[in-house]
Amino acid sequence: MMEAIGYAAVDAETPLQPFRFKRRDPGPSDVAIEILFCGVCHTDLHQSRNDWGNALYPMVPGHEIVGRVTAVGGSVTRLKAGDLAGVGCMVDSCRHCAPCRAKLEQYCDEGATWTYNARERATQNLTFGGYSDRIVVDERFVVKVPEALDLKAVAPLLCAGITTYSPLKHWKVGPGQKVGVIGLGGLGHMGLKFARAFGARVVMITTSAGKAADARRLGADEVLISTDADAMAHHRASFDFLLNTIPVGHDLNPYTNLLKLDGTMTLVGALTELAPLVGGNLIGGRRRVAGSAIGGTAETQEMMDFCAANGIVSDVEVIPIQAIAAAFDRLLRNDVRYRFVIDMASLAA
Amino acid sequence: MMEAIGYAAVDAETPLQPFRFKRRDPGPSDVAIEILFCGVCHTDLHQSRNDWGNALYPMVPGHEIVGRVTAVGGSVTRLKAGDLAGVGCMVDSCRHCAPCRAKLEQYCDEGATWTYNARERATQNLTFGGYSDRIVVDERFVVKVPEALDLKAVAPLLCAGITTYSPLKHWKVGPGQKVGVIGLGGLGHMGLKFARAFGARVVMITTSAGKAADARRLGADEVLISTDADAMAHHRASFDFLLNTIPVGHDLNPYTNLLKLDGTMTLVGALTELAPLVGGNLIGGRRRVAGSAIGGTAETQEMMDFCAANGIVSDVEVIPIQAIAAAFDRLLRNDVRYRFVIDMASLAA
Repeated sequence: MMEAIGYAAVDAETPLQPFRFKRRDPGPSDVAIEILFCGVCHTDLHQSRNDWGNALYPMVPGHEIVGRVTAVGGSVTRLKAGDLAGVGCMVDSCRHCAPCRAKLEQYCDEGATWTYNARERATQNLTFGGYSDRIVVDERFVVKVPEALDLKAVAPLLCAGITTYSPLKHWKVGPGQKVGVIGLGGLGHMGLKFARAFGARVVMITTSAGKAADARRLGADEVLISTDADAMAHHRASFDFLLNTIPVGHDLNPYTNLLKLDGTMTLVGALTELAPLVGGNLIGGRRRVAGSAIGGTAETQEMMDFCAANGIVSDVEVIPIQAIAAAFDRLLRNDVRYRFVIDMASLAA
Repeated sequence: MMEAIGYAAVDAETPLQPFRFKRRDPGPSDVAIEILFCGVCHTDLHQSRNDWGNALYPMVPGHEIVGRVTAVGGSVTRLKAGDLAGVGCMVDSCRHCAPCRAKLEQYCDEGATWTYNARERATQNLTFGGYSDRIVVDERFVVKVPEALDLKAVAPLLCAGITTYSPLKHWKVGPGQKVGVIGLGGLGHMGLKFARAFGARVVMITTSAGKAADARRLGADEVLISTDADAMAHHRASFDFLLNTIPVGHDLNPYTNLLKLDGTMTLVGALTELAPLVGGNLIGGRRRVAGSAIGGTAETQEMMDFCAANGIVSDVEVIPIQAIAAAFDRLLRNDVRYRFVIDMASLAA
């Protein structure tokens, strides 16, 4: 076993604190990674505070991990020591069900093994995430990161990036389409960048008029303020696709009515109960509401390569690990443009 | 103008009563039809009692109309006097918007003109439906009915039939798929017949164990009682497609969880508010909830021809027009297997 250090939640109330623990030694198919940066996802905040009632303590959050490979097992072929590597929300899955065979491990019939707040399949040991100095992960769940990108801004691609890339690809967003991105946060700002890169006409849909200039800088052709009834009516039944990144329960009906015939709105953020949907809003216009969860291992690598080819990274604010409590508080107020990333060199401070 | 007689609602409370009115004389593109049978749809009951708050009185309900052509205008090419003909939920639309150009007039950007409880586009006269002895309709909105089928059992195809046929076709239901039909009423029993005819493995999903034998007779390979938690768990994440015919607000969550990866549930009945949907039920499994409204003019003719080729009609109970109030009451109790059809010869009684 290898000594590791990180920051952990020990219960729902206490701020994260330094935590010493052990990582497994790399097996034949494992990759050992020195973590350089880790993004701060809304999920980290919710899980560490047990907002979803499924917390396993001690919990080392973090699933937007980038770093450098320090060692690989004997059967590893895709990565070698010295490579840059990334790890996202999953570290394992059953590997034999239909979704796993399709490299859609996030939909594994047995449930994927999450990067933290989960248990390893073989040992039942807790998994510990990226708010730490090192991690050991099976090759299948490690992404090769190109050297060309700004590494600190790559970290959020492992969750915020793939979560928005995947549904835009799945629903074939491209030139000639009018696409709306609902909510301008960590996910939304990546949605703007990808929708623009895919060639669509992109409309930022937000409650915050103050974010309009930023939305345009990030790729929006137009900004629609969702509290402006006239503007919403003007855009009625005109969108081919809506990427809904709102992370909490809300009313879908004003957005469904923006969709044109056969248009789709995909939810990527709101896991809990939504306000009552009016059936007629889907029946009229043959509209669709769908969901999408992160992306599989193959598609995550595809996204990373697409980002390298197109110079796409996240807009980040780098913080030391010691500032994580303050960062969580600012995240709750949506006060970040657009993702906090922890510089893991601060762990040694 | 032509003299016509039918049954009309004059307000939300009074039972339907005999009503004399006028139909327009056939124009160049019109087809005049002597109505022989008219199906009784849930919509007739809701509209005539102003349950949706948009009633226009006097109201002659009925949009599952079959009869014989008595005259056609000079530019009519698809039908001639003596042919059997059908009219469904629409009698007109704008004809120039994108949905109309695609022959999906039910999604007309300006709103289709409904067969009753609507106003003619040119004259703003009220439209009057099929609970009457004759109707005059533009050729585009008239279906040619094959002579081979049992005519009284054809009438419900014009609404219940096309409403279930269209989404099954749109979502490409076919061999190798497991398909659920939720709710066994006028729509559901047609959904069973079509899903079976398209080659899918068909599961009837119902709260009524007493309907199991009938469901199998109508085409179900299996019956799933939705109140049986063990049975629902057994079928979890196993359906490619669900056709949800429940006509009132209800909880979608138990049904979304029956869908496998990328599975779709299409709503065709519930126009009003649904119980809160849990976003995670769509996000996990990349599931979809969609809507679908009747079908366009081209697809309605396609369905009619498919029914003729495959010997598909509705299961009906024929009533005289004088029994309409009692039929509405039985409809409210879901006491019909599976569609009331009015024999219009009774108007002369």
